[in-house]
Amino acid sequence: MTMLTKMTARMASRLATRRASTMQICEDIASFRQARAAVPAGATVGFVPTMGGLHAGHMSLIAEAKATCDVVVSSVFVNPAQFGPNEDFDKYPRTFEADMAKLREQGVDIVFAPTTATMYLPDHRSYVDPVGFDDVPEGQCRPGFFRGVATVVAKLFNIVSPTHAFFGQKDAVQCVVIKRLIEDLNFPITLRVMDTMREDDGLAMSTRNQYLSPDERVASSILYAGLRQAKADFDAATTATLPAATLRATIERIYRTEPLVGEIQYISIGSKATMEELVDVDTTQGAVISVAVKVGACRLIDNIVL
Amino acid sequence: MTMLTKMTARMASRLATRRASTMQICEDIASFRQARAAVPAGATVGFVPTMGGLHAGHMSLIAEAKATCDVVVSSVFVNPAQFGPNEDFDKYPRTFEADMAKLREQGVDIVFAPTTATMYLPDHRSYVDPVGFDDVPEGQCRPGFFRGVATVVAKLFNIVSPTHAFFGQKDAVQCVVIKRLIEDLNFPITLRVMDTMREDDGLAMSTRNQYLSPDERVASSILYAGLRQAKADFDAATTATLPAATLRATIERIYRTEPLVGEIQYISIGSKATMEELVDVDTTQGAVISVAVKVGACRLIDNIVL
Repeated sequence: MTMLTKMTARMASRLATRRASTMQICEDIASFRQARAAVPAGATVGFVPTMGGLHAGHMSLIAEAKATCDVVVSSVFVNPAQFGPNEDFDKYPRTFEADMAKLREQGVDIVFAPTTATMYLPDHRSYVDPVGFDDVPEGQCRPGFFRGVATVVAKLFNIVSPTHAFFGQKDAVQCVVIKRLIEDLNFPITLRVMDTMREDDGLAMSTRNQYLSPDERVASSILYAGLRQAKADFDAATTATLPAATLRATIERIYRTEPLVGEIQYISIGSKATMEELVDVDTTQGAVISVAVKVGACRLIDNIVL
Repeated sequence: MTMLTKMTARMASRLATRRASTMQICEDIASFRQARAAVPAGATVGFVPTMGGLHAGHMSLIAEAKATCDVVVSSVFVNPAQFGPNEDFDKYPRTFEADMAKLREQGVDIVFAPTTATMYLPDHRSYVDPVGFDDVPEGQCRPGFFRGVATVVAKLFNIVSPTHAFFGQKDAVQCVVIKRLIEDLNFPITLRVMDTMREDDGLAMSTRNQYLSPDERVASSILYAGLRQAKADFDAATTATLPAATLRATIERIYRTEPLVGEIQYISIGSKATMEELVDVDTTQGAVISVAVKVGACRLIDNIVL
């Protein structure tokens, strides 16, 4: 068994070297499966699903996959099932050539970049429903979003067949949805959640940040400033529990100092396991503070783990 | 590649021989995955999911899997998620030792027989929703049934990782749900639907037939007799379409001749692709006639493909 493992690792390493300059881009499922079938059976396969518009946050996931797995697969697919009727599906940034250059530079082995027609047959009707997640604040703002996410990720898991999947903490509820998806439906996949990548002033990296005007971009750093203050208060607490309302008020007070902050959609203090709202935070168990705020026309989300 | 395929087939054949007398029974996911991992990578794996209470219908699925796949896996799990609150989950026949003897005799290689606690974690919340199937007649009779079926089959597919899955035509809507599940969520699995096995008088084999009294058992042969007459009328039709109502009336008239037939829950003339009700049957495209009828306290279902 040890010899087999070693042989497999060597084969995978040779494969990775050979592919460094020959990243395969597959636009249909059959050609992807053919490329995937060429990966030796014992190799670890790290998967980074994306909607394109790649930035340093995505690249940190790719880098971790590259550092820890024999073969790295990424996907680029703007999934219509996770956009509401009034959301930005049509204007979502599509930067395919630039994305491919970035993935190639990082040494990604195979890219899966299907069309919508490939992913959703006309008679598609099976959806993965992560029950309850429409009731957490982010779900209430985007009804059906997590069903769309869970469905496309289940599909991608079955196409890509990874051993490891990498997601960013930036999308806090999504990470919990994927954790439940993997455990509840028994996907043989290890989930790795990586820290949110931030600009120098603390703004969480996001494809949608490019919607911000220069003034709005400067103002947006206040999202993380508020979260950091709440975490500092939590870390300094000497009581067994801390009222969620106190943390929420601190953040809201900070956000209200910035005139370019518009609607504060929610400041949620939620359970790490379910993202359900907490009344009091147990200081030994912690929580996730997540926020959604409008800055100009742009909706920004961020979170911090206590 | 050819040499590799040959080697794999030889390995699989050796494996099958060695296992003929040593069927592995795995009650938890980890031990099943260990047994599954010992199957050579290129081998075909046929999967027959069951709820136990095995009869000749199940055995025909196993026999086909055995004849066409290198390795055969079966599961025995009475899935609570597919029973309604007033259904027979508690009294559903559980005949574990007899089932194991039958599976062993057929040369099954690995049996997965988990507990409910193994399959449904306390915080389980991800379900596969086959949208629309609660609206076909069988779904209206059993709300949530197909969601329970789709969810447990998705879980079993991810645990067993088969290349082929075998289901019986007896459960006509279930076969369509599984077809959609496989296509919509991109499971890399070939679906094989096998003909309904019948008693000498035509009654479709079912674990629940044992609920019938001797008189009811004799009367129950009328279900298939009605379906056969409708098919004979369809086959004799010389028109381009045939009204569904005509076929339905023929069957109902036949069923009403049998005093032990109680409630006729539905006589459905449905599309082969979706099981949605048809008003007229295109004689070149056909349809599926499916029925649910109470005989005594026992609910029987059957169907015939036109």
